[in-house]
Amino acid sequence: MSSTAPAPLALPHDRLAGALAALAARLGPRGVVTDPAAMAPYLIEPRGLYAGAAPAILRPATTAEVADCVATCAEAGLALVPQSGNTGLVGGQVPFGALLLSLERLDKVRAVDATDLTLTVEAGVTLHAARAAAEAADCLFPLSIASEGTCRIGGNLATNAGGTAVLRYGNMRELTLGLEVVLADGRVWNGLSRLRKDNTGYDLKDLFVGSEGTLGIITAAVLRLFPKSRSRTTFLAGLADPHAVLAFLRRLRAAGGDAVTGFEMMPRFGMETVLAHMPGAVRALAGDHAFFALAELTSTRRDDDLPALAEAVLAEAFAAGEVEDAVIAASEAQSEALWKLREDLSEAQKFEGGSIKHDVSVPVSRVADFVVTASRLCAAHMPGVRVCAFGHVGDGNIHFNLSQPVGMEKAAFLARWEEFNRLVHDHVAALGGSISAEHGIGLLKREELVRYKDEVALDLMAALKAALDPKGLLNPGKVLTPSSRAARSS
Amino acid sequence: MSSTAPAPLALPHDRLAGALAALAARLGPRGVVTDPAAMAPYLIEPRGLYAGAAPAILRPATTAEVADCVATCAEAGLALVPQSGNTGLVGGQVPFGALLLSLERLDKVRAVDATDLTLTVEAGVTLHAARAAAEAADCLFPLSIASEGTCRIGGNLATNAGGTAVLRYGNMRELTLGLEVVLADGRVWNGLSRLRKDNTGYDLKDLFVGSEGTLGIITAAVLRLFPKSRSRTTFLAGLADPHAVLAFLRRLRAAGGDAVTGFEMMPRFGMETVLAHMPGAVRALAGDHAFFALAELTSTRRDDDLPALAEAVLAEAFAAGEVEDAVIAASEAQSEALWKLREDLSEAQKFEGGSIKHDVSVPVSRVADFVVTASRLCAAHMPGVRVCAFGHVGDGNIHFNLSQPVGMEKAAFLARWEEFNRLVHDHVAALGGSISAEHGIGLLKREELVRYKDEVALDLMAALKAALDPKGLLNPGKVLTPSSRAARSS
Repeated sequence: MSSTAPAPLALPHDRLAGALAALAARLGPRGVVTDPAAMAPYLIEPRGLYAGAAPAILRPATTAEVADCVATCAEAGLALVPQSGNTGLVGGQVPFGALLLSLERLDKVRAVDATDLTLTVEAGVTLHAARAAAEAADCLFPLSIASEGTCRIGGNLATNAGGTAVLRYGNMRELTLGLEVVLADGRVWNGLSRLRKDNTGYDLKDLFVGSEGTLGIITAAVLRLFPKSRSRTTFLAGLADPHAVLAFLRRLRAAGGDAVTGFEMMPRFGMETVLAHMPGAVRALAGDHAFFALAELTSTRRDDDLPALAEAVLAEAFAAGEVEDAVIAASEAQSEALWKLREDLSEAQKFEGGSIKHDVSVPVSRVADFVVTASRLCAAHMPGVRVCAFGHVGDGNIHFNLSQPVGMEKAAFLARWEEFNRLVHDHVAALGGSISAEHGIGLLKREELVRYKDEVALDLMAALKAALDPKGLLNPGKVLTPSSRAARSS
Repeated sequence: MSSTAPAPLALPHDRLAGALAALAARLGPRGVVTDPAAMAPYLIEPRGLYAGAAPAILRPATTAEVADCVATCAEAGLALVPQSGNTGLVGGQVPFGALLLSLERLDKVRAVDATDLTLTVEAGVTLHAARAAAEAADCLFPLSIASEGTCRIGGNLATNAGGTAVLRYGNMRELTLGLEVVLADGRVWNGLSRLRKDNTGYDLKDLFVGSEGTLGIITAAVLRLFPKSRSRTTFLAGLADPHAVLAFLRRLRAAGGDAVTGFEMMPRFGMETVLAHMPGAVRALAGDHAFFALAELTSTRRDDDLPALAEAVLAEAFAAGEVEDAVIAASEAQSEALWKLREDLSEAQKFEGGSIKHDVSVPVSRVADFVVTASRLCAAHMPGVRVCAFGHVGDGNIHFNLSQPVGMEKAAFLARWEEFNRLVHDHVAALGGSISAEHGIGLLKREELVRYKDEVALDLMAALKAALDPKGLLNPGKVLTPSSRAARSS
């Protein structure tokens, strides 16, 4: 791990007790939790990287109650860590002595409008529930990530979640029209706009999206819906190398345009790992291929001939030598089976021992160069290391994961985490890439941020933090540290 | 007009002279202009609403020279107004005693990449040149506004330009991946990212997009391209009222999805005005219809059967009683002729005397209610007033223009400007709408902003301005006034 847990924050005892008593009186017994057993699930982070601690968990049920909590804490000088689904992968939702404010009771779908194509939901609504509410209105909310059932909209917004549909629909930021936010002083900004065009001043919404709870606490949002897809075609292609994958992506997009809603890459090692370990996984292509591309075409038009489109592009790609073999799903069940090969990959990797992971992005045009060069660098650094570079190649977002060499001790391999981070992140930076494509910074990457982020950008971020949270009470120590700027110049 | 020009700003004479001399020495004779005749075109605003004045015009040719200008002025305490194409409609680009900084010499297309689908251009590149650069790479840059030939990318970004393709592709904000910005102190933030996914800290880009030059000076941008359309179908439908237009839009989008790239509305008065006054305008539908919907379907697929899609949806809409009649363009020439009816509307209105205009938006689902009720309110307020409510109904963006009653004095009509603003904007606000959908605030609407904008949002905006431009030297008095907050609470 590149980041260790910070020293616990000590909250002033008398003011803490007073604030908790006042809030318990106003929020009721469900609103303030101090029982250690009841608190435990909120303090455990999904990968077990950090052990959190909090004097209490605040569980407001309405925006007004969130505002009350924040105002009360601001007055008493008490720090707060907001949390929604507790599925974050960088420790952003973990308190280290600060109060934890859970948004899970703000779980109402406030409105859905199929003409506006908008969905208004509170921060504690799960992604699954949000997608279901859109579906019930015969619309699509396209955000699609693995933790759909447990992650909640507040966290999706705070981390600007990505996933497998970004290629066509964008990240959570692009899927958001308006926000309701409780500011650091407890005031509520009602920015729940359902407008598609509004040029009346600065863009406040995007300041909060992706700020990981450090600038304000998002309590509700207006999300952008899309007409529902009525046709879908999935296919899997086998290819010789990442350059062929990239050339094929470009060809497919030029021909298919908006119909191309997903484009994922997997290497041979990943595919074999899934086939070896995951129950029900079925080999889709008989031959041996170094890389695989999984593509999804969708359309709102009923009976749109997407298989014909796929066949035409694949025929061109065969002729051009880009694609070695391909299979087009002939049914929904076959589509699901192809997607399962991709979706099971993270889980399957666990069977191959220790794994050092990187959630990086580069410009799409550099994806192939990145995968080839970074793989070579890692192999030179540790003979036998098994590279599993997979993911959202259509967005330039590669999960560059390394599995330990066969026979190596897991602990010995994981002890090399930071060395490999440096190797991979240095190369990402050289290509103009990002060291956190979709998971955020949280605690895990805050030192990496200081190392790689543009100095002027870090200064701007610090100025924004000071302007919006002058007392530093919102999610302290996350994303930026007080020493971010000093550390950089030292 | 709802806003008058501010009192001229007096710059400190000695420091001004020193700064200009220093900059002239470094930027050369083309870089600093003080000749009144040469300065005149920069100070004239397209609608003649404001008469600008500046002691000099700075014309840097590179980002480094812009930074030099800003740093020199910051040190001397001299205010600057950035300007690119000088086509803005709200006076944002007009100086009143401050120095004018023109970005027109930053006119280089830095890069285009058809695999990334990105275009990197400087702020002084015209929209037309940017679109041509995309086209040359067999890609589409979709921003489409009337001033394409003269407006420049810097201004498109500063005002978050909209236009006729927002329905599918979004505003300028959604079309932007990265920015290069000269900050108020003269430092350069290099945020020219070509990444589709990057979650390393706060979203700085969107803070500058739409800030009308008050938070920083945008010198270059990475824009998002799209695969080029290979098929296109345009059609015009006649409908009975705005509710039918809205029902038809919903039906068309549900069936056509991403293929629906434009959807514009015109009333009978607008259509008749174009047919009466514009050379070459040809009546497309024989019957009498109260409203018209102009729709464009596009696709990247060659020979995609978009006419069949249009026919199928129109057949359903006839059966449902939504559409009275329709014509599908049978050729590119016919498509152009249909679009010309819409594009000529603003020009044609000039032949009908004085015009009081509103660039407003409401949630899409409220567009019909808005048009019906606001039209009734205006007619009750002034019998005989002719409402021309037209525009981007797919985005909820209506240009709610009023032509004077036949026979009324133009001046007498225009004297009622503020009364009608109040009537229309009050109704927009009641529907959760915006008083500036695509033109921005500038000077023209800064008092309206104070009247209608959420108070907390105004406070946040003031905090951001103070954080990023603490001396208030960037485009002073635009968007926010120093008294914005005080005025609201008084």
